[in-house]
Amino acid sequence: MNKINISEKFSLFSEYWSPKIVGELNDQHVKLAKFKGEFVWHKHDNEDELFMVIKGVLKMEFRDKTEIVNENEFIIVPKGVEHKPVADEEVWVLLFEPKETLNTGNTIGIFTKEKLDKI
Amino acid sequence: MNKINISEKFSLFSEYWSPKIVGELNDQHVKLAKFKGEFVWHKHDNEDELFMVIKGVLKMEFRDKTEIVNENEFIIVPKGVEHKPVADEEVWVLLFEPKETLNTGNTIGIFTKEKLDKI
Repeated sequence: MNKINISEKFSLFSEYWSPKIVGELNDQHVKLAKFKGEFVWHKHDNEDELFMVIKGVLKMEFRDKTEIVNENEFIIVPKGVEHKPVADEEVWVLLFEPKETLNTGNTIGIFTKEKLDKI
Repeated sequence: MNKINISEKFSLFSEYWSPKIVGELNDQHVKLAKFKGEFVWHKHDNEDELFMVIKGVLKMEFRDKTEIVNENEFIIVPKGVEHKPVADEEVWVLLFEPKETLNTGNTIGIFTKEKLDKI
């Protein structure tokens, strides 16, 4: 029941594409991540994912369109929908998703993080 | 799969203590609410609640302490814990919580909103 300062938590890490757990509720995690460059195409068979942009600009590519998500905006990617996050410049993102969500979904590879740190 | 602009959504309503649904994922709702004044003491027997401050200052009172939650900060109130949100000045809050969460929890009264609007 202590408040969490989002900027303070972002100051604790610098790696890209490596979400950190900063909160847990109702079997969901609140995570923070820094993105830069292109991620991999993937989908989550069982989990919807929310991406809220805290700083910068996130391009969320879908197979049929691209959504530009700016600061103070969020996007929900439903389960089963292929997506690829792209960040031309560094972007800070807050994620809200079920605890069991794997960052790369069905696309296991170099970006996959099996075990996330809590910060 | 369209992005949501948080400020734009806040511009669509002015009532206090009347959360609006702006997103749904994994049986959870993302809600926006404007608070001003004192809410009622209550708890949620089965739901954890997240309060993120978008604008202003939220005082979250617990029976044994008060947490001051500023912009860019959030607090998670675990199920079963009595709490009372207080806003000396208007505060804009984003909530994450299970769809079945009733705003006043176990304290049914004039603040209770049985049916929330989606905006």
